[in-house]
Amino acid sequence: MEKINVALIGQGFMGRSHSNAWGQVRRFFAVPMMPVMHTVFGQEAENPQLFAENWGWQHAATDWEAVVRSPEIGLVDVVTPNYAHAPVARAALAAGKHVACEKPIAGTLADAREMVEAAESAGVQTFVWFNYRRCPAVALAHQLVESGRLGDIRHVRAQYLQDWADESIPLWWRFDKSLAGSGAHGDLNAHIIDMTRFVTGQEITEICGAIAETFIKQRAIASGMAGGGLAEGGGDTATMGEVTVDDTVLFLARFSGGAVASFEAARQATGNQNRNGFEINGTKGSVKFDFERMNELEYYDATLPRAVQGWNTIMCTHGGAFPDGHPYVENWWPDAHVIGYEHGFTNQAYDILRVLAGQPPTVPIPDFNDAYQTQRVLEASLLAAEQRRWVHLEEVK
Amino acid sequence: MEKINVALIGQGFMGRSHSNAWGQVRRFFAVPMMPVMHTVFGQEAENPQLFAENWGWQHAATDWEAVVRSPEIGLVDVVTPNYAHAPVARAALAAGKHVACEKPIAGTLADAREMVEAAESAGVQTFVWFNYRRCPAVALAHQLVESGRLGDIRHVRAQYLQDWADESIPLWWRFDKSLAGSGAHGDLNAHIIDMTRFVTGQEITEICGAIAETFIKQRAIASGMAGGGLAEGGGDTATMGEVTVDDTVLFLARFSGGAVASFEAARQATGNQNRNGFEINGTKGSVKFDFERMNELEYYDATLPRAVQGWNTIMCTHGGAFPDGHPYVENWWPDAHVIGYEHGFTNQAYDILRVLAGQPPTVPIPDFNDAYQTQRVLEASLLAAEQRRWVHLEEVK
Amino acid sequence: MEKINVALIGQGFMGRSHSNAWGQVRRFFAVPMMPVMHTVFGQEAENPQLFAENWGWQHAATDWEAVVRSPEIGLVDVVTPNYAHAPVARAALAAGKHVACEKPIAGTLADAREMVEAAESAGVQTFVWFNYRRCPAVALAHQLVESGRLGDIRHVRAQYLQDWADESIPLWWRFDKSLAGSGAHGDLNAHIIDMTRFVTGQEITEICGAIAETFIKQRAIASGMAGGGLAEGGGDTATMGEVTVDDTVLFLARFSGGAVASFEAARQATGNQNRNGFEINGTKGSVKFDFERMNELEYYDATLPRAVQGWNTIMCTHGGAFPDGHPYVENWWPDAHVIGYEHGFTNQAYDILRVLAGQPPTVPIPDFNDAYQTQRVLEASLLAAEQRRWVHLEEVK
Amino acid sequence: MEKINVALIGQGFMGRSHSNAWGQVRRFFAVPMMPVMHTVFGQEAENPQLFAENWGWQHAATDWEAVVRSPEIGLVDVVTPNYAHAPVARAALAAGKHVACEKPIAGTLADAREMVEAAESAGVQTFVWFNYRRCPAVALAHQLVESGRLGDIRHVRAQYLQDWADESIPLWWRFDKSLAGSGAHGDLNAHIIDMTRFVTGQEITEICGAIAETFIKQRAIASGMAGGGLAEGGGDTATMGEVTVDDTVLFLARFSGGAVASFEAARQATGNQNRNGFEINGTKGSVKFDFERMNELEYYDATLPRAVQGWNTIMCTHGGAFPDGHPYVENWWPDAHVIGYEHGFTNQAYDILRVLAGQPPTVPIPDFNDAYQTQRVLEASLLAAEQRRWVHLEEVK
Repeated sequence: MEKINVALIGQGFMGRSHSNAWGQVRRFFAVPMMPVMHTVFGQEAENPQLFAENWGWQHAATDWEAVVRSPEIGLVDVVTPNYAHAPVARAALAAGKHVACEKPIAGTLADAREMVEAAESAGVQTFVWFNYRRCPAVALAHQLVESGRLGDIRHVRAQYLQDWADESIPLWWRFDKSLAGSGAHGDLNAHIIDMTRFVTGQEITEICGAIAETFIKQRAIASGMAGGGLAEGGGDTATMGEVTVDDTVLFLARFSGGAVASFEAARQATGNQNRNGFEINGTKGSVKFDFERMNELEYYDATLPRAVQGWNTIMCTHGGAFPDGHPYVENWWPDAHVIGYEHGFTNQAYDILRVLAGQPPTVPIPDFNDAYQTQRVLEASLLAAEQRRWVHLEEVK
Repeated sequence: MEKINVALIGQGFMGRSHSNAWGQVRRFFAVPMMPVMHTVFGQEAENPQLFAENWGWQHAATDWEAVVRSPEIGLVDVVTPNYAHAPVARAALAAGKHVACEKPIAGTLADAREMVEAAESAGVQTFVWFNYRRCPAVALAHQLVESGRLGDIRHVRAQYLQDWADESIPLWWRFDKSLAGSGAHGDLNAHIIDMTRFVTGQEITEICGAIAETFIKQRAIASGMAGGGLAEGGGDTATMGEVTVDDTVLFLARFSGGAVASFEAARQATGNQNRNGFEINGTKGSVKFDFERMNELEYYDATLPRAVQGWNTIMCTHGGAFPDGHPYVENWWPDAHVIGYEHGFTNQAYDILRVLAGQPPTVPIPDFNDAYQTQRVLEASLLAAEQRRWVHLEEVK
Repeated sequence: MEKINVALIGQGFMGRSHSNAWGQVRRFFAVPMMPVMHTVFGQEAENPQLFAENWGWQHAATDWEAVVRSPEIGLVDVVTPNYAHAPVARAALAAGKHVACEKPIAGTLADAREMVEAAESAGVQTFVWFNYRRCPAVALAHQLVESGRLGDIRHVRAQYLQDWADESIPLWWRFDKSLAGSGAHGDLNAHIIDMTRFVTGQEITEICGAIAETFIKQRAIASGMAGGGLAEGGGDTATMGEVTVDDTVLFLARFSGGAVASFEAARQATGNQNRNGFEINGTKGSVKFDFERMNELEYYDATLPRAVQGWNTIMCTHGGAFPDGHPYVENWWPDAHVIGYEHGFTNQAYDILRVLAGQPPTVPIPDFNDAYQTQRVLEASLLAAEQRRWVHLEEVK
Repeated sequence: MEKINVALIGQGFMGRSHSNAWGQVRRFFAVPMMPVMHTVFGQEAENPQLFAENWGWQHAATDWEAVVRSPEIGLVDVVTPNYAHAPVARAALAAGKHVACEKPIAGTLADAREMVEAAESAGVQTFVWFNYRRCPAVALAHQLVESGRLGDIRHVRAQYLQDWADESIPLWWRFDKSLAGSGAHGDLNAHIIDMTRFVTGQEITEICGAIAETFIKQRAIASGMAGGGLAEGGGDTATMGEVTVDDTVLFLARFSGGAVASFEAARQATGNQNRNGFEINGTKGSVKFDFERMNELEYYDATLPRAVQGWNTIMCTHGGAFPDGHPYVENWWPDAHVIGYEHGFTNQAYDILRVLAGQPPTVPIPDFNDAYQTQRVLEASLLAAEQRRWVHLEEVK
C-alpha cells in the first residue's frame, strides 16, 4: 500500500487530537493510503521529543521550516496558534506539500486569502480540520438535507456556547488578538458557520446585525502563555493585561436559499461546557444537533402521518450507507457503543487519506477555499458589529 | 338534549377531580347528553354544602343511602376511600343507577367480585375511573398497538413511582389496610396494570415473582385521619400507629400473548413525584410513556429506513382521528398548548356520557368486570409475594 | 366577600381561555374578591348567547359600548383582535372601569401610548394578559434571579417558534396588518420580550440588528376571516390575498444590565408547535424554559461543588413560598400532577383579583405602562429591520 | 519506569477493545508502570499476525499454552468466548502470571469457583473487565453513594436492553450454551449486577422471582460461528439450529442493606440498542445512568431547598477528585468534549497498572472473587426461574 509521511507542526490540545487521529485511523479504518507519523515539530521549551515518544511520531524537530521543506514529508499538518497558520501553510505549499490546517484557516482574512492563492498555484490538496463535520450525526444531517428530506430551508439557528472563561482564567494566547485573531468568534463561531454551510449546502450572503462583547476586559498575566492547553488557575493577579478579543459574538444572517439565521458564540454561558449545535427547519422537516450528545441527531419528519410526527432522536451509531445506516461508525463499535470527541478527527484523517488516494471523501471536506468562505463570514459579522449595520458578503473579499 | 343527574358520593382529592370533570366537560366537549351536577354527599364534618357551592353541585347531602336511591339521580359517582366502594356501588346498582367508581374497584377482591355480580344483575352501565387511559398519549399508544404498528409484544415494563411518603407523613387512611385495602399496590400498581392491559389489549396470565415491603412500619397518628387530601406535616409523635399496608410492591408477570413484564409501585422512590409510566417493546416498534411528561409519547418505528430510526417524541396535542391526530385534544387547545392532570378525568366524563348516550367511547373504557381483572392481578401478586412463588391467575378468582 | 362583575369583550380562542379562567379561579383558589361572570359581548354572527350559556356568563350582549359603560360592570376584559384593543380599553377607562387587556397591548405603538395615557388619567387598575409569566416555572425563574441566584445576567436567548402557518392556511385576521398590527412579531415576540423583561427584571435598551420576513406572501381568501380560532383547511384558492404581516422576526438586543440577547419568533419552524422559551446565563447560574414542557424549569447552579453541577430539571409542582416550593401550584394538584396551558390564565385571574382587593400579586403583573415597554421593543426591532441598523430604544417613544 | 509485558489471549470484538486500551493508556495517562503489547494469540484462521500488526502487538502466536507459560509475559489478558476463560486463566495462574479476564468471569459457576481458588493459591493479582465501572458517570455514582449523599438505599432498578437479535441473526457462539454459558443473562445482566453491587457497595442476598425466556428458539446456521464480532445477515436458512440460551432474563432481588431491586436483560427490546443503566433511590437522593448517554449522570439531591430540587444532569467531563470533579477525565479532553465506549477499557487498563504498581485504583476494581459474587447472582436467578420460587444466595456457592 502507498504510504505518506506526515509532519505535525505544533503540539498543545490540537496536537494531541491530531496525533491521536493519525495513530488510530489505520487501526480502525481500512485506509487507502498508509499514514506514517514521521515528524513532530515543537519549540525547544515544549519538549517535542517527549511528545513524539508519547504519541508515536518517529522524529522530533525544532526547526519547522526545515521540516516542511524536507523531501521526506508528503503532508504537513498545522496545529499552531492561528496567527502562524499562514506562514507555515505557505512555506509548505511552496515546497509542494499537501497541507491540512487546523481551523479557523487563519487569524486574519488577508492571511486566509493569501493561503487560498498559494494553494491554487501549488496545485496540491488542502484541508481544514473542521472536525465536527465528521461527527456521524452532523454528516447524517447533511445527507438528510442533500436527499431532499427537509425541503426548502427556512430557519437556521446555531450556537456554540462554552463557560470556561470566568475571571479566574489568566491571559493566554486565546485572549490576545495578535495571536488568535479573535476570541469566541474565530474559535467557536467558525465551527457553526462551517457546519451550517455544510449541512444546508448554501452560502451566507448577508449579515443582518451583530454584537461583539468582551465582558472581562482585563485578566491576570500567567507565566506560560504559550501552548495550546487550557492554562487554568494561577496567574499573578498583581499584573493584569488587556484582553484584546471578544468573549461573545452574536449575529443574524441570510443564506443564499433565503433562510434566515442566527449565530452565537460565547465563553461565559454558564452551564454550557461545549454546546455546539444547530437547528435547521425546512418545509418538509427539521434537524437539531447538540455536540454534548454528539451521537444523537434529532430529526422531525413532517411527511409522516400527523399522529406519529415528532422529534426523532436518532442514535447515529449504526454503520451503513445512507439511508441504511450512519457514516463512519461501522469502523468503530456495535450499535449504541457510542463514540467521543476525538473520533471526529480520526474520521477526518480517514477522509484526508481517501482524497489523497484519489477517492471521494465520505462527505464533503473543506479545502482552503471552502474555509475562506467561512472566514469571510467571520469578518463580515465583526464589521457589522463595529458599524452597527447590515453587511453584504460582497463587501468582504 | 337529554340530561342526566349525577350524584357524587365523597369529596377529597378525587372529589375535586371528578367535580371539575363534570363541570368542564360540557364547556369543552360537544356532549351527547348533558350532565347535571345534582347532589354531592359528604359527612357532616366535611361540610358538603361548602363543597357544593364551590364546585357547582346543586344540592349537598349527608345521607348517602338516600342519595343513591333518589329517583332524581341517574348516575352515581363514587369517590370514597376504597373500603366503601362496594357498599355504595351495590346500593346504587340495587336502585338501578348507572355507577362510575373511582379506582381501584374495591379494597378487596371479594368486594370487587360482588360488585361485578351486582352490576351484571342490574343491567346498567358501570365505569371505573382509570383516568390515565384518557391521557391522549396513552390512548395513542393503544391505537398504535391496535393498528399493528408494534407487531408482536415481547416486553412490558411499567412503574408508578412516587416519593411523598417519608417518615414525616403521619398515619391516614391510605396507610390503613382496613380502609385502603393496600398501599402503593392498589393505589399505583392498579393504574399501571390497567394501562398495560389497555395498551397491549392482552391479559396478565401469571405472576412470576413479587416483593411487597413496608419500609416505614410505624407513623405518627395525626388528628384528622379521614379525608382524601394529603395530610401533611404535624402528627403527635408521642402516639405512633402501625402501618398495615405496603410502601412498595414489585412483581414479574406474563401476558397472554407471551410477553414478559415487570411492574413496580413505590412511595419512597426519591426524585419521582408521579412517574407513572410504561415501555412496551414489540417486534416492529416500541412505545414509552411517563406521566410527568403526560403530553408526550415516545414511539420507535423499526420499519423506517435504519438511518432515521429513533425514539420519536410525539407531542400528543394535534386533534384528529388516528392516524391524522390525537384523541380528545381537538376539544382543548391548539397544538402544543399542553393539557394537565385533570383533563384525563374530563375526557373520561365525556366518554361516560357517550356510552350512556349509546355511542362508543373514544377508546375502550373499563367497566366493573374489566376493573375486576386488574384486581385479580393485584391479588395474585400479593399472593406471590407472601408465598415466594409463581402464581397463575387461574388461582385467583 | 366583595364581588366584582366582569364583562368579556370578544370571544374566539382567547375568549375561551379567559372565560375558563374566570370560572375556575374561584373553585381552585381562595379568592380575596369574588368574580362574577356578568356579560360577554360578541357580534351577532358569533352567537354570544350560546357562548354565554356554555361558559357560564350571566348575560350576552352585542353592543360593546353599552357593556363597558354599564354601571353593573367593574372590570372589562378585552379579547378582541389587536386593532380593537385601544378603542375598547379607552372607552372602558373613560367609564372608570378597571381593564384587563389581552396581549399585545395594541396593534400599534400609538394606540398603546394612548392607552397608557388614558389609564393614567383614569386612576384605575390595568392589566395585560401576558399569561406565561404565570406558569409556575417562569415565575420560579423570576424568583431565582430576584434572589440573586444567577448573579449578573450576561446572556439572554429567547425563541417562540410555531409551525402552523404553511401554505394550506388561508388568510384570516392574523395575516392582516390592519387587524393584527404584525404577524409572529406581535403574536409571539411580544411574549418572549415580556417574559425576559420579567425574569431578568431589566429593560431592553438597544436593538442591534433585526430581520423580518414573510415567506408566504399570498394566501387563499377563506370565507370567515373574523374570529379568533385557527381557521384551518379550505380556502378558495381561486381568490388569493396579500399577507401584510411577517412570518418571522429575529432581532439582537442589549439589556440595561449589559446582557446581550437574541430573540426569534416564527410560524413556520417545522417541528416546533409551541416552543416558547428562553435561556438566561448569569455569572452564578442559568435557567432554561420551554413551554412545551411547561411544568419544568432547568436550573444550573454554578455555586454547587463542581462534581454535582448540572442542568437541574425542576418539576415545578410543589406548592409553597420560595424557596420551599413553587408559586400557584398548591391551589392545583399534588406533586407532579401537572398543569396545562389554561392554568396560566387562571393563575393570572387570581392575581388580578388580589390586586383589585389591594393585595400584592404573587409575582409582578404587567399593567398598561409595563406592556407599553414591550410594545416599544416590538416597534424598535421592526425599525431596525427596515433600516438595517441598530436602533436605541430612546428613538421609539 | 518498570515495564510489564502483556499477552492477549483472543481477538474478536473484545480483542479490539483491549488492544486499543493497552495502546492508548500510555498516551493519555501518566502510567505508573509501562505496559508493553508483547504477544497476541489467535487461531490460525483468525490471522493473529495481521491483528498484531494492526494493533501494535510485537508478536503473534497460535499456541496459547506456550504464551501463558512464557517467562516474557507478566500479565495475561483473556478475551476468549466464555467457556475458555477458566482453562486459560488457570494455566496462566499456574504459571504465576497476573490475569485480567473479560466478563463474565466464566461460563459456569463451577468454572468461576475454580478460578477463584486458583487465584487464591497463585498469590497474584486478578482483574475482571467489568468496564462500565470505569465510565466516569458510574464511578461518580459510586462516589456519591460512598460519600453518604444518597442516604439509605431503598430501590434499585437496572436494565441492560439491546435489540440486535431478531430472526435475521444466525446462530453463533453467543446463542450456544456450551460456548457462552448463557445468553442475555451472562452477557448483559452480568454488567448490571456488577454495576449495582459497585455503586451501592452492597451484596445481593436473595432472588425473589425470575423469568428466563427464549423468544426465538431456532436460528439459521451461518458458516463462521467462531469469532467475537456480530455475525450479521446471511445464514443458510435451509439449515436451522437450536438456540440453547435465553433471549431475556428478568429477576427481582434484595440487597444486603434492605433495598428491593429489579433486573432485566434483553436482546430484542426494540429501540434500545445498548441501554445499560440503573436507577438507585436512597432516602436522601437518587442517581440514574443510561450508557447511551454515558457521559451523563442524573442525580437528585433531596437535601436541597425544595424549590430547586430536581433531576440534575451532570456532564461528567470535568477532571478532578471528588467532589471537585469527575474521575479519569482529566486525562482525556476539556469539559464536555465527551468520551466514548472504549474509554472505559482504557480507564481500566490504567487502574490495572496502578494496582500492579502497588497503588490503589481510582475506584474499586473487581478481582476474581468479586466477579464470582456476580456469577452467584446469575446462577441463583436462573435457579429461581427454573423452580418458580425465591432463592437465597446461600443456596448457591
